[in-house]
Amino acid sequence: MTVSPLAPASFPDLPVIDGVTFAAAAAGVKYKDRLDVMLAVLEDGSSVAGVFTTSATRSANVLDCQRKLEQPSDGRAAILVNSGNSNAFTGKRGDGSVAALCASVSELCDIDANRVFTASTGVIGQPLPHEKIIAKISTLRDQQSAGFLGDAARAIMTTDTFPKAATKTITIGGKPVKIAGIAKGSGMIAPDMATMLVYIFTDAKIGQSDLQTLLSRHNASTFNCITVDSDTSTSDSLMIGATGRSGVDVTDNADFEGALHTVMLDLAHQVVRDGEGATKFVTVTVTGAQSDSDARLVAMATANSPLVKTAIAGEDPNWGRIVMAVGKSGAAADRDLLSIRFGDILVAENGWVSPSYTEDAGATHMKGQDITINIDLGLGRGTATVWTCDLTHQYITINADYRS
Amino acid sequence: MTVSPLAPASFPDLPVIDGVTFAAAAAGVKYKDRLDVMLAVLEDGSSVAGVFTTSATRSANVLDCQRKLEQPSDGRAAILVNSGNSNAFTGKRGDGSVAALCASVSELCDIDANRVFTASTGVIGQPLPHEKIIAKISTLRDQQSAGFLGDAARAIMTTDTFPKAATKTITIGGKPVKIAGIAKGSGMIAPDMATMLVYIFTDAKIGQSDLQTLLSRHNASTFNCITVDSDTSTSDSLMIGATGRSGVDVTDNADFEGALHTVMLDLAHQVVRDGEGATKFVTVTVTGAQSDSDARLVAMATANSPLVKTAIAGEDPNWGRIVMAVGKSGAAADRDLLSIRFGDILVAENGWVSPSYTEDAGATHMKGQDITINIDLGLGRGTATVWTCDLTHQYITINADYRS
Repeated sequence: MTVSPLAPASFPDLPVIDGVTFAAAAAGVKYKDRLDVMLAVLEDGSSVAGVFTTSATRSANVLDCQRKLEQPSDGRAAILVNSGNSNAFTGKRGDGSVAALCASVSELCDIDANRVFTASTGVIGQPLPHEKIIAKISTLRDQQSAGFLGDAARAIMTTDTFPKAATKTITIGGKPVKIAGIAKGSGMIAPDMATMLVYIFTDAKIGQSDLQTLLSRHNASTFNCITVDSDTSTSDSLMIGATGRSGVDVTDNADFEGALHTVMLDLAHQVVRDGEGATKFVTVTVTGAQSDSDARLVAMATANSPLVKTAIAGEDPNWGRIVMAVGKSGAAADRDLLSIRFGDILVAENGWVSPSYTEDAGATHMKGQDITINIDLGLGRGTATVWTCDLTHQYITINADYRS
Repeated sequence: MTVSPLAPASFPDLPVIDGVTFAAAAAGVKYKDRLDVMLAVLEDGSSVAGVFTTSATRSANVLDCQRKLEQPSDGRAAILVNSGNSNAFTGKRGDGSVAALCASVSELCDIDANRVFTASTGVIGQPLPHEKIIAKISTLRDQQSAGFLGDAARAIMTTDTFPKAATKTITIGGKPVKIAGIAKGSGMIAPDMATMLVYIFTDAKIGQSDLQTLLSRHNASTFNCITVDSDTSTSDSLMIGATGRSGVDVTDNADFEGALHTVMLDLAHQVVRDGEGATKFVTVTVTGAQSDSDARLVAMATANSPLVKTAIAGEDPNWGRIVMAVGKSGAAADRDLLSIRFGDILVAENGWVSPSYTEDAGATHMKGQDITINIDLGLGRGTATVWTCDLTHQYITINADYRS
């Protein structure tokens, strides 16, 4: 698989987060000799929070994590993730796989089973060969190292063309606080939930309930604002572990919140940049809506429109299709108050194409790799921004020409 | 453009509908020497009803038709349709184009301007060269013939690869009652409105209000149950004219209603069969939902899922993607009660793949041209059926590789 043309230039240098270690292994879940399992172990005193898919057919792993997070604790914790098989729609047998994995980690790593969180990603509907993963748990335990977060990023990849990580270190009260996260995802990406798999770690000190509040709040403006294909995974999970080892309490700390947002947005953008078949990174910003929710309707209708996405793939400044998307969104709109810009270029206003607009200017913007569509509805103060990619032949090739 | 592999074997023989005549002409709206305008004239005593797009950015023509239908009348009426330009998002100038067209037809054909209905289909956002159409009105008037409905079907085509018509004649009280309709549409097709352009004519006798009720009722189960790409046109219109010339009153007549439904469903299916790039005709039926609206959510989520549609294009019996679509639909669902069938083949039940299912059986069904997906949610009595097509490279080629 060729690496996405939108991939970041390099993989970031990931810092050591005191209090959490990682290991990755090739368990042969689907392919041989490919990293496909990662185990993270968080030491005593860590808070863990999570946001999960709202799919009605979500996987056994997701249901298990949700149950466990309802019982806050700050004991040692583990996160075990495999790629190659999603353990979704595998019936009671899927529940059994999760229980077996958690029991094995609990026993071999001496962690309360209620603090073992799992995720599986890959094909839906095939039995998870959990015994292959269990056979690697003691190796994963023995190889734990604070430096292996990058390997963990590789182990959770499926159709991803590059591993995804982001990090930020800030100074609070003279002390450094580190955040580092990894993500996977490139297809079956749509909002209304924590799409894809994302694991973020920090040495900040913060209670679980505050951590959960922060995670949910920033999920709404990062991962829930991206879409590749409007399809929603059955498995996907966003979790954060805070070890407290920096000794810095970040409760209600705006700097920490800002840094966390930056890391989450960076990871979310990387998922879009690895969207199946993507050649353009597209930002859709809506202003002037009657409400923020109306703005989001318009932004998502535009970002998910096959006709808008194929026009972008064809480098066609086809603003008529944007008008169409605004019209179908369900949001209040008035033809004569609507204005549309590509980047800074005013395309349409007063119900029609702007007198200053030229096709050449629009076409030049469309030839770039970063496309910006700004829609002002002229009705109120509601705003929204979402990110997506174009819809190309390669998306069809990936999803129609081969069995996934 | 190659004709869709899903096209009907032949164009139907269309009957003469007493009381309505047609003509088509090449006005050069976008292309030279191609039929692009049609004019239908309904004689005195005709009822006219319509259903239109609910898009917030709908065209000037649609707004004008909606206003006029609020004032019932049974005088002479005209329907003027052009392809090549949608007159949508053309600001005040678009309103002026509609007024000019209606004034011209009114004067040259001696029809009250409030009984002149127009529609335009084609590119969005470019000024309609209405003077080119006006220059053809007297020709269209002079060439009116009851036999030219087939030409009218050709004149309203845009990216369609075949003209679409359907007809049914029934006998009521020993007398024949005829229905004949034409349609255009192949992209920007999604429900929640009267998608595309459809014109149906009958010599039945029925008052406008009853006609409107019938049209709206059957629109809900025909045109509003198809989707090609989840995108919604700004222009599209479904109208029916009943001339009464058969002398048969069809108010509350179940046979007439059934025949009308048949014609509407036939036209709706033809639009799907001409879906941009379509190679498979797909029927999605949902049963066992908590409500009909939940069933529709699941059916539409499945029919609009790019991952389901690309799997069908690839002849891949990828039922995991159907589980995904059920999960994201927002409808109540229970993994362990859900069952999925391809045609008669039981694929999944009890939360997992059925023991009797084989990939060979699924793959064989997928190789056919007519794909049937049956989803039973096992929760209640809600049902829905929608029709769609697959998502292929040709859809991308049509919409990304050329400027439309």
